[in-house]
This record gives sequence, structure tokens and C-alpha cells, in this order.
Amino acid sequence: MQIDVDLAGRSYPIYIGGNLLNRSDILDRHVCGPQVMIVTNEIVAPLYLNMMLPALARFDVHTTVLPDGERYKDLRTLNSIFDALLKVPCDRQTTIIALGGGVIGDVAGFAAACYQRGVPLLQVPTTLLAQVDSSVGGKTAVNHTLGKNMIGAFYQPIAVIADTDTLGSLPPRELRSGLAEVIKYGLIGDYEFLAWLEEHIGHLLELDPDSLAHAIERSCRNKARVVAADERETGERALLNLGHTFGHAIETHTGYGSWLHGEAVAVGMVMAMDLSVRMGKIKTSDMVRVVDLLKQAGLPVRPPAGMSPEMFLTHMAVDKKVEKGRVRLVLLNALGDAYLSDDYATAQLNLSLSGFCH
Amino acid sequence: MQIDVDLAGRSYPIYIGGNLLNRSDILDRHVCGPQVMIVTNEIVAPLYLNMMLPALARFDVHTTVLPDGERYKDLRTLNSIFDALLKVPCDRQTTIIALGGGVIGDVAGFAAACYQRGVPLLQVPTTLLAQVDSSVGGKTAVNHTLGKNMIGAFYQPIAVIADTDTLGSLPPRELRSGLAEVIKYGLIGDYEFLAWLEEHIGHLLELDPDSLAHAIERSCRNKARVVAADERETGERALLNLGHTFGHAIETHTGYGSWLHGEAVAVGMVMAMDLSVRMGKIKTSDMVRVVDLLKQAGLPVRPPAGMSPEMFLTHMAVDKKVEKGRVRLVLLNALGDAYLSDDYATAQLNLSLSGFCH
Repeated sequence: MQIDVDLAGRSYPIYIGGNLLNRSDILDRHVCGPQVMIVTNEIVAPLYLNMMLPALARFDVHTTVLPDGERYKDLRTLNSIFDALLKVPCDRQTTIIALGGGVIGDVAGFAAACYQRGVPLLQVPTTLLAQVDSSVGGKTAVNHTLGKNMIGAFYQPIAVIADTDTLGSLPPRELRSGLAEVIKYGLIGDYEFLAWLEEHIGHLLELDPDSLAHAIERSCRNKARVVAADERETGERALLNLGHTFGHAIETHTGYGSWLHGEAVAVGMVMAMDLSVRMGKIKTSDMVRVVDLLKQAGLPVRPPAGMSPEMFLTHMAVDKKVEKGRVRLVLLNALGDAYLSDDYATAQLNLSLSGFCH
Repeated sequence: MQIDVDLAGRSYPIYIGGNLLNRSDILDRHVCGPQVMIVTNEIVAPLYLNMMLPALARFDVHTTVLPDGERYKDLRTLNSIFDALLKVPCDRQTTIIALGGGVIGDVAGFAAACYQRGVPLLQVPTTLLAQVDSSVGGKTAVNHTLGKNMIGAFYQPIAVIADTDTLGSLPPRELRSGLAEVIKYGLIGDYEFLAWLEEHIGHLLELDPDSLAHAIERSCRNKARVVAADERETGERALLNLGHTFGHAIETHTGYGSWLHGEAVAVGMVMAMDLSVRMGKIKTSDMVRVVDLLKQAGLPVRPPAGMSPEMFLTHMAVDKKVEKGRVRLVLLNALGDAYLSDDYATAQLNLSLSGFCH
């Protein structure tokens, strides 16, 4: 199956399906120049690198294997990719292939955006989270100790190849983390999908191929539509950050990596819903319904013990949606209807935070 | 005087003239959002920071003062700018003002390109080199130990403010370094300007205001035209790199900073002319004429002692103009007529390099 991300002049396909990693026809179609640098990590490399290499036989292929984990998504790791590229040396036509999860896609994508001021990038996501969210749309970044994804670029890939067979090797915790982003699409703008997820959450956790394929396709269609409408996040695209302002605060506070991104986003979505309830936008029963879905998906719904409202506010102050000293938040008018706003009472936010922190 | 860089959707003005640093009307017109981060260095700050601050009185102004010199144009310095931005914290509407020479413009420009995936950038160049070349056109970068300007972004400023009064404080060696890029514009596409420079090189070295203003304006017009035609350097823009492939090799070899950029470019232009002579494109007398002009400008015309042809070839192999393993070079068909080509004999390049290295 193919979904196109429709950007003026730079449209690109997302391929979704089984058995795609070794498809030389797809790789031949999209790899530019004779040189290829595969950026992957120590977990993914033994599983999928050898599956991919034969399909790249006609290229001059190099590999960079990074340590695994969000804590390595930093400038130092980025520089190790530049070291590898320059030691070859790789030229400006080199295609960088990001083979791995969200961390690999973000850091290898940012390396592609910066190396010689930009080289072609092919995203090959191997986790659910990367397949439904981070590999699509061109956001690349590394973390700073003071804030998540604070350093990066909008840089679109030439294609995304999402091989659903790779999900079979995914640790259950990573699968659940990805489900948080899947549920997010339902919450922000696709109520029908949210209802479908409530029906099929068990099948997804059992890795039922048809259910997974549907969830990935529907998520990518949602993402592709929003990105096409607002590539640079001047408006609608910010809605994709439901739960992320609270979630990033948790990730920054816990030092990147002890909480998975999707876990932090799950809690963040609950917190955004709580504020929406307090503002009279959605009903408590709506929130409970989603909390139930998140719990069924095996996701946390409360922030880490010991995290105070002040800690949240400190980290939230460096969110990218801050404008004129005020954090804009993604809130819900209804399940399936999100909006971005700074029109909330600070006292209500504080009450909401206090309710979660004890 | 104002020259516009004409890019679809992102055109911007270059202001050239005296007494511009304290023009609050210009700053008010271009600064976005309430927050400003001025990035400058320890040499420029005491000279011009206080001149600029009153004109920014209505903004929330922060300052980052970097150490001076090309050797600090690296990822570590870049990260120190992110540290400063996040400690405030500065939001995504923050305008970064690059106040200084080429190094400041490149590193602060790249910081603006990456911080929160891009914040507004105002270039305020205070050296001749930055005013005629590096502040215009959106190339930003930092160096890697294995290659100059290897990590960066195309990122256009919202305006360039070139206050020619700042050149009065410029060390003579820096002035000469800037003249190398001025002479470059004559060589690649503006023979009339080259002839004018031969007449006026003495006036420029004496900082004659009218001559300087003309040289800066003419250089900026040349640069703006080329950038408008080919922002991403898929063709004509590469001609602006006359002398830079050889020059970058010298800069990388000598460790960044012992040779100024313009000094290395001056030698590089002589080397490119020598190869052009060997290929029968220009006459020896053409080369001698330009060597004479460069020497009058006080610029070196031979590479550093002890640099071998092999050292040149090693560093040239990571040039951004390398394609399929071959370095493309900017050569001359005639004075004022440059072209980009990989159609030169390797043996001839080796002979040319040997002639310079002994």
C-alpha cells in the first residue's frame, strides 16, 4: 500500500506492508547517487541490516551503528554520524537511510538535513511509533539537556518504507508506546478511528496483521493530511502535539529514556483531557473512556511519582509552542476534536497539575 | 542604499551604509517577537554592542558573547548558543541577531536554522568579508575537523544590515581577507568590476568611503543575483566558490584560523587560474595580472610551506562539489567568466599542485 505526502514540489510516498526491507525495486527507485550510509542502532542492526543489504548490492554501502536509546539522541551522537560520513568520505549525493525507531529517524534525519547542508534521506522505520508518526512529516531533531527536540530541522525524506514485519520483533513495551500515538490520531481528529481502536485494541496487542495494517494506514493518512496542510507547523500541525507538552516535560525531567516517548505522551494526553474537563469542554466520562483505552493498551496514565507542578511548569516553559511567555496547549473540544489555545486560566492549569502530582 | 535578494516568498533586503547599527526604525521593521538574542564575539562586543542596544530598547534583549576565531566555528560553540537560548528560555519567535564577521554569521545563522527547528535571523556583518559575501545568501555552517563548512543549512535571514562604519575598526589583515572575496566577484562574472578594482585597490586599502561603498554594493548585487537564480547551489551558485576548494584544503590543513578565509581563497584563486592556464583557457598574462592585484591587496598567492599535493588532494576529496568520487572545480574561461567542471585531466591537476608545493 502506498500513501503520498502531498507537499508542493517535494511530495513523497509512504510504503506500508510486509516484506519491504529487501525490495530492491523500491530502493532502486529512491536511492540517489552511488553512496549510501545506513544509520541504525545496536538492537536493530543484527535483526534487519543483513536483510536490507542484498537489496542495496549495486550501491557503495556504509553503516553507522549507534547505541540504542533516547538518551543518545544528542549533538554528540549526531557528530559521530558526521565523523562516519567524512571518514569515507561521503559526497553530497549520498543517501542516508534511517533504519530503526523514532530516535534513529530523528537523529539520522537531522544528520541528513545538515551534512553538507542537506543530502537525500530515506526513512525505514522499524517500530510502531516511527511507522505511524515520527518517520512521516519531516520533523528531525536532537534533544538538549534543557529541552526535548529543541535542536532540529524540518527536512522531508524522499520516501518512507514501513515494513510491518519488523513489528514482530518489537518488545511489547515499544509496541504499547507506539499505540499512544495511534490513539492520539483518534483523539485529535478522527473519532471513528478512536471507536475502532476501542474495538480492536486487543487485536493490536496480539499483533494481528490486518488490525496493525489498518491502524498504521489510518494513522499515516491522518498525519499525511495534516503535514500537507501545514508543513511548518504554523497552525493545524500543532494539534499532532496533543499530550506532548506535558509528555516532553516528563521525558526531560526523567532524563530521556527511562520513560518511552509514547508512555509520556499517554500521560500527557490524560493531563490535557483533565484540563479540558475542568474547562467544561469534554465530559469526565469522555476522559474516563480514553483512560480505559490507554490502560487496556498497557500505557501509564499518571506522571512519575515525585514530579511536582513546579517541575512541569519549568520544563513546559521551553516548549516550542510557547508564545510571548505563555505555553499554548492542545486541548479537546470533544473526543476527535482538538484545538490549540493559550486561552485557559493559569489557576486551572495549576489545579490540574496539582491533581496529578502528589 | 538597499539591495533586495529576490527569492520566491522569502525575499529580503540588504541595507548598506554608514550609521546603521543604531537605526531603531530598521530594527523595528525586521525584529519578530519580543525576544532578541544577539550573538557576537569578544572583539566585536566592546566595539558595537552598546551602539546597538539603545535601538533595541523595546525588546527583551539577551546576549551571547563567543570567543573570536574560525577555530571556534564548531558544534561545541553552536551548543553554547543553544544553552544560552534555553536558559532564558527563548521561544520560537525569538530573533537571533548575528553581530560580527563571517564566523559569527555562519555559526549564529546555523543556530537560528536549528533552534526549535528555525527562528528568525538578522545578519549584522561587521567585517568586509561578511558584508560582501558570507552574510548574504543564506549559507550557514560549522566546521568539522575533517572538513570546512561540512555541517550546516541553507537558511535565509530576514534582513542584512551592513554598517560600513564598522570597517574603520577592522584590522588591516581582516580588510585584506575581505578584498579576496571582492576580487572573486570580478573574476567569476564581472570583468568591468575587476578592472575597477585594479584602479581603486589603493583607495580600498585606505578605507576611502566612496570606494568601499561601491565595492560592497557591487559585490552584494553580484551575490544577490546569483543566489536568486540558484539558492540551493544546483548550478551557477557553485561559481561563487572560485578558489574555495583549494582554499578550504589550506584552512582544514592549517587547523582553522591561522590562515584567514580570504587569504586561503586568494591562494586558491591563483591555483584555479594556474590550472586554467594549463588547460589553455586563460593566458599566463591574465593570471599574472590577477596575482599582481592580489599582491597589491596584501594577500598571499602561494600555499603554506610544507603542504604537499597529497595533502591538498586528501582535503579536496571531502569538498561539497565532489560528485561520483571526482572533485568538480571552478575554473576560468577568461577573466570575468568562470565555469564549474570535472572535465580536467587529473595529471594536469597533479602537475599544477606540484608546481605550488615545494
